[in-house]
Amino acid sequence: MIEKTINDLNLGERAKFSKTISESDIYLYAGITGDFNPVHINKEYAKNTFFKKRIAHGMLIVGFISTVIGTKLPGYGTIYISQHLNFIAPAYIGDTVTTTVEIVDILLERNRVKLRTICKNQNEDIILSGEAVVSPSKIKC
Amino acid sequence: MIEKTINDLNLGERAKFSKTISESDIYLYAGITGDFNPVHINKEYAKNTFFKKRIAHGMLIVGFISTVIGTKLPGYGTIYISQHLNFIAPAYIGDTVTTTVEIVDILLERNRVKLRTICKNQNEDIILSGEAVVSPSKIKC
Amino acid sequence: MIEKTINDLNLGERAKFSKTISESDIYLYAGITGDFNPVHINKEYAKNTFFKKRIAHGMLIVGFISTVIGTKLPGYGTIYISQHLNFIAPAYIGDTVTTTVEIVDILLERNRVKLRTICKNQNEDIILSGEAVVSPSKIKC
Amino acid sequence: MIEKTINDLNLGERAKFSKTISESDIYLYAGITGDFNPVHINKEYAKNTFFKKRIAHGMLIVGFISTVIGTKLPGYGTIYISQHLNFIAPAYIGDTVTTTVEIVDILLERNRVKLRTICKNQNEDIILSGEAVVSPSKIKC
Repeated sequence: MIEKTINDLNLGERAKFSKTISESDIYLYAGITGDFNPVHINKEYAKNTFFKKRIAHGMLIVGFISTVIGTKLPGYGTIYISQHLNFIAPAYIGDTVTTTVEIVDILLERNRVKLRTICKNQNEDIILSGEAVVSPSKIKC
Repeated sequence: MIEKTINDLNLGERAKFSKTISESDIYLYAGITGDFNPVHINKEYAKNTFFKKRIAHGMLIVGFISTVIGTKLPGYGTIYISQHLNFIAPAYIGDTVTTTVEIVDILLERNRVKLRTICKNQNEDIILSGEAVVSPSKIKC
Repeated sequence: MIEKTINDLNLGERAKFSKTISESDIYLYAGITGDFNPVHINKEYAKNTFFKKRIAHGMLIVGFISTVIGTKLPGYGTIYISQHLNFIAPAYIGDTVTTTVEIVDILLERNRVKLRTICKNQNEDIILSGEAVVSPSKIKC
Repeated sequence: MIEKTINDLNLGERAKFSKTISESDIYLYAGITGDFNPVHINKEYAKNTFFKKRIAHGMLIVGFISTVIGTKLPGYGTIYISQHLNFIAPAYIGDTVTTTVEIVDILLERNRVKLRTICKNQNEDIILSGEAVVSPSKIKC
């Protein structure tokens, strides 16, 4: 089980997840959330925007942060408390997004961990930055 | 087109979106993001957690905020700057989540708008609270 | 109904199914099975592998064998007993895979049929070879 | 990286993956593979079969074996050589399937590993048994 209690964690510890964003990711995500903003699902409309082509939903990229936190660091049993997000740049169809979380503070007595959360594309451009506060599992199954 | 410039917006203005969360929403979302945390996709594991049954990914619910901001208020052409999120309670399969955004500040000279963002279930329990900063479209198509 | 009992079957009889593999097939399959091996969903990672680009999950291709057996030969009502699989070469996004099953043995008294199962790409390269043992439907609906 | 060379592996080593099978898994899998056998997607037809209700595609369950082999043991970079499968019992909608692979032989000089592969439901009933032969990654990234 990938399940760490606060005593298993160290400052500076990192985990990551990478995925190439496909058109089908964006279309399925639109279908789940109802976010049919034309900048995501209308190629003709997108041509005339600042971005020139369809972009992934920012919140789709945000989802990768939770993938890393909930399945890797701290892993299963983690309770999400809060997340701050800064949207820096878009991800396009075909971009490979790497999401890294890094432990930047450990509040032992409150069972809280602060993590820096960052998403970059294949060119190392930052897409998203932010910070999460989570409560790691108190037990190991 | 649902596309408002900052001059079209008023303090206290609201928009919302509601959806019943299905098992297939959660499974497809896991498939897009790679978040196969067993609390979302393993009924037997979930029975033994604090939540007692499978819960929706918090970030899936977060996606509804962007749906409202990007397609209703301010609507198309809005650029997301930042979002703060507090995770209060889970959503279960079959819950109907209503996401409301409300304009709480308008910074005319910087073309920025601050919105209170809140997600509630069918019992009016708060699932998520938070605040978004966005930049509305500068032009109307 | 496409439903054959063992008395309807002949040695050497064949059936097939062809499909072009799309990126969305691979992404959805990853989402169903949880197989987010980067060789399937990370374009940058795949560049540095032996295969040079993302490949389809081998087991996705294997699924086509069951498609032919369960819906064509012997068809509905067939019970799968066993399958042996040899993985020969990968399928890439855009490849058209043709899966052929051929009856190579009929065990009348045990109601069992042995089939050669083979998957090839558009260049007639073998992707998968193998052998299935199935029990055809005992009745016709 | 979850990437083990043959020197990192030990006889008896195990890894597993569990997932509750949803109706949407079965429907999406049918859509990817074209396996629209009514026993999987026709509730009325399934009532009159031996199984009494819709069952998951056996090959969908088989996919979990590759999930464990390709992402956990031996992990990334593993080349699949062959797989033998015995179909023992069906999985129904709502069943939670746990797939376990265990190293049963290590052929050091040929860089081959033999694994016992087994899928069980929440009641510990065996759904699938079998054996895989794989070639672990020769390098660690």
